[in-house]
Amino acid sequence: MKLYDKVANSLRENIHSGFFVERDKLPSIRQLVAEHNVSISTVQQAYHQLEMEGLIEARPKSGYFVAHKTTTPTLPITSRPAQRPIDVSQWQDVLEVLLAKENVSTTQLQHAMPNMSVPSLNPLLKKMSSLMRHQVALSLPYGNIKGTLQLREQIAKLATNSGCVLHPDDLVITSGCQEGLSVCLRSVTEPGDIVAIESPSFYGSMQAIKTANLKAIEIPTNAENGLSLAALELALEQWPIKAILVTPTANNPMGYSMPEADKKRLYQLAQSYDISIIEDDIYGDISYQSPRPKTIKSFDEDGRVLLCSSFSKTVAPGIRVGWIAPGRYRDKVTHVKYVSSSMCPTLPQLAIADFIETGAYNRHTRKVRLLYKQGRDHLIKCIKQYFPQDTRISFPQGGYVLWVELNKKFDAVKLAAQCKKGDVSIAPGTLFSATGKYRHCMRLNFSEKTEIEREQAIGKLGFYIEQQIEK
Amino acid sequence: MKLYDKVANSLRENIHSGFFVERDKLPSIRQLVAEHNVSISTVQQAYHQLEMEGLIEARPKSGYFVAHKTTTPTLPITSRPAQRPIDVSQWQDVLEVLLAKENVSTTQLQHAMPNMSVPSLNPLLKKMSSLMRHQVALSLPYGNIKGTLQLREQIAKLATNSGCVLHPDDLVITSGCQEGLSVCLRSVTEPGDIVAIESPSFYGSMQAIKTANLKAIEIPTNAENGLSLAALELALEQWPIKAILVTPTANNPMGYSMPEADKKRLYQLAQSYDISIIEDDIYGDISYQSPRPKTIKSFDEDGRVLLCSSFSKTVAPGIRVGWIAPGRYRDKVTHVKYVSSSMCPTLPQLAIADFIETGAYNRHTRKVRLLYKQGRDHLIKCIKQYFPQDTRISFPQGGYVLWVELNKKFDAVKLAAQCKKGDVSIAPGTLFSATGKYRHCMRLNFSEKTEIEREQAIGKLGFYIEQQIEK
Ligand SMILES: Cc1ncc(COP(=O)(O)O)c(C=O)c1O
Ligand SMILES: Cc1ncc(COP(=O)(O)O)c(C=O)c1O
Repeated sequence: MKLYDKVANSLRENIHSGFFVERDKLPSIRQLVAEHNVSISTVQQAYHQLEMEGLIEARPKSGYFVAHKTTTPTLPITSRPAQRPIDVSQWQDVLEVLLAKENVSTTQLQHAMPNMSVPSLNPLLKKMSSLMRHQVALSLPYGNIKGTLQLREQIAKLATNSGCVLHPDDLVITSGCQEGLSVCLRSVTEPGDIVAIESPSFYGSMQAIKTANLKAIEIPTNAENGLSLAALELALEQWPIKAILVTPTANNPMGYSMPEADKKRLYQLAQSYDISIIEDDIYGDISYQSPRPKTIKSFDEDGRVLLCSSFSKTVAPGIRVGWIAPGRYRDKVTHVKYVSSSMCPTLPQLAIADFIETGAYNRHTRKVRLLYKQGRDHLIKCIKQYFPQDTRISFPQGGYVLWVELNKKFDAVKLAAQCKKGDVSIAPGTLFSATGKYRHCMRLNFSEKTEIEREQAIGKLGFYIEQQIEK
Repeated sequence: MKLYDKVANSLRENIHSGFFVERDKLPSIRQLVAEHNVSISTVQQAYHQLEMEGLIEARPKSGYFVAHKTTTPTLPITSRPAQRPIDVSQWQDVLEVLLAKENVSTTQLQHAMPNMSVPSLNPLLKKMSSLMRHQVALSLPYGNIKGTLQLREQIAKLATNSGCVLHPDDLVITSGCQEGLSVCLRSVTEPGDIVAIESPSFYGSMQAIKTANLKAIEIPTNAENGLSLAALELALEQWPIKAILVTPTANNPMGYSMPEADKKRLYQLAQSYDISIIEDDIYGDISYQSPRPKTIKSFDEDGRVLLCSSFSKTVAPGIRVGWIAPGRYRDKVTHVKYVSSSMCPTLPQLAIADFIETGAYNRHTRKVRLLYKQGRDHLIKCIKQYFPQDTRISFPQGGYVLWVELNKKFDAVKLAAQCKKGDVSIAPGTLFSATGKYRHCMRLNFSEKTEIEREQAIGKLGFYIEQQIEK
């Protein structure tokens, strides 16, 4: 890391954490030179960098200030779930979301679906058509049970971006990340075991914990750095936890990325308690940082990390192509995956392999990353405008969902029902808890809509929220 | 049952069991009259019936003899596995088969793969191409978690052929039958439960039992009627069995179809012991009988039968489209299926729906059924010619695999290894036992090869077998 990056990072953190707020005066160049023991030009470069990001503004003769229209919102409060193993409930609520039939006119802020109308997807669609036309026979026989070699080669290459050295043989292709998570959970646990998860977290992984006859222990997270390592360590001391399931990069539903140091520390904790880590990296390639953040897997020395991902969030979920880098659990994972659904269809795998190999995947993720970042900033602006003053909003570092925390009295389940009539759909916070917590929270998606449509939808939500609060 | 049917059945059994062998003289009419206490004309009718079937021949002035060139082979002996719950092993052997890389020159008798070069598949391939060209966008978003409605409608219609009245809402689409079986097992059991299965049976279902932390109890079958109901009843009395998993129609690996009366009786047993039945009907639509045999599901009054199938054996396995009719377990099955791999890709489902709706599926299955029946008769002829005299062969009533039982001293695992060098692949019997039994048996596939190729391969096998026996 360059020196000026270090200075910029420290300032950025202080702004994001709310230490400096809108219009605050920032330290003088001289102060920073002393504080960081660097040259004047280094500090100047750092300030220049933050100015480019729109985070700060220079006022002639007065110095640097936190920008007025900064997008950094007031972050949600660290979650405090009960620290004991529990049975996952909530399936009926999840099912309702999954079965929800939406009108074409609905502004869909509910599902975590990528933008699929971007032209950078065209090379993939073309390849799929062309494979169907010229190699349709390949879609008939059983394929390789570990997945098509061409795809595993490309995924192994991609993995270097996140700091991983993987061999195609270290990979098992799955029907999306959901199958990956289910397979990994069942590969590293026995029925009755306890698995630690982030709270809030993705409902699909919690339901996988449930149907694998496991218990979940929800670990508090904070909206900036993710999993509370202190809380995790406490839980590890108290309970015979068998595995940790985390989404540490561009988390769903919060959007945080755990700092690299925390990821390392998490890995070390797993080592000292001799447990495995299931790392869900499904949004990793569309984190806004460049180069993308490292995975926990990249620190793995003894194969205890099972990395799961898919192209559902970066490309399109209907393709149903995911993968596992199962480390030392390779044989077990291969077994459980075979039993789970036998092999995966060959042509979609070949199409994705080509999409990566030609560089089109990297071009695509670069494009949508920008799009999503703009979406985030716009959505946050809208929420600040239309939602109550005390609303807290997460500040995603990747992906296209964010977390909104309202006043405790507020009921997002009721809002979700109201919304339906108003042709807006949202995901109430209860879905992201194992036991129906976060009723005053919601997850919103910012991948798809035009700014006008998004603003109208948020305006409607704001209106419903006010109605609720007035009652 | 008519009186002459009884007499004919008893003779037929004696021939199939090997009590009477080729060219043996059969009892005189007078003997049978005395033995069965029936009229002369009844015995005459019985002999006439068997003559029509080609099983026996009349020789002027000498009486009746077992036909010389009968296609009905000497059937394998009823299996006698130990009647107690066991842990499934054999995964390493299964994995080896799954990972086997075959030369193009290999005569593949190992995998249960349909013939995929028949022209009657063309309408499906065309539809797949056309969907990709004109509706590729449908392949991008998440689809319905229960599966595409169009396909569920068509499957519901098809099901009437097997005597079932199903509503599209009663169906859940899966990634092949393998996922269906896994999902059903996990939906009706708890870890530690006991599941009754046929012995021999398909390795994929046994491995699913293993990874679901269940125990298997292997029930003897006979090559003609399948599951021994007497043995099953004994097991039900002795053990707290939770479910029965059967492939009662055109069974893999034996090829038998349980008589309808036995299917009914099996259902009644399940009722009286209040357990569920997972019915694997994957080969049902290519049983040689017309109309196709009824499923156990067709007798289901209280929703305890979970019917699983796929288009893997009737159409092509790479399509990965299967389904479950889960009866009263619908909600649980929907849950476990969602967790298992979320939804299935939409376009393959639409292509299959169209294939059925246009009548092309029925035309295709009618065509291949004939093809496979001829394949069976030819393969049996070859085996009789090239294998040792005391070889026993099952006589499939559908599908394209049969079961060969050699002298007990014989080692099919060794043969499989030898075969590889000779560019022939076979499935040793051990794969179809939970604990490595049936080492003197093998499963052979007769779906694909030309008669010349098949005869050459069987000739080679015969040669290797002789070598082994001479040593
Ligand atoms: C964090 C996370 N993991 C896994 C999944 C499941 O992904 P897939 O559609 O590839 O099965 C999702 C989808 O919502 C997700 O958000
Ligand atoms: C009896 C039986 N059931 C299930 C399966 C699995 O089928 P699918 O490929 O549809 O998952 C097979 C495949 O060999 C089979 O023979």
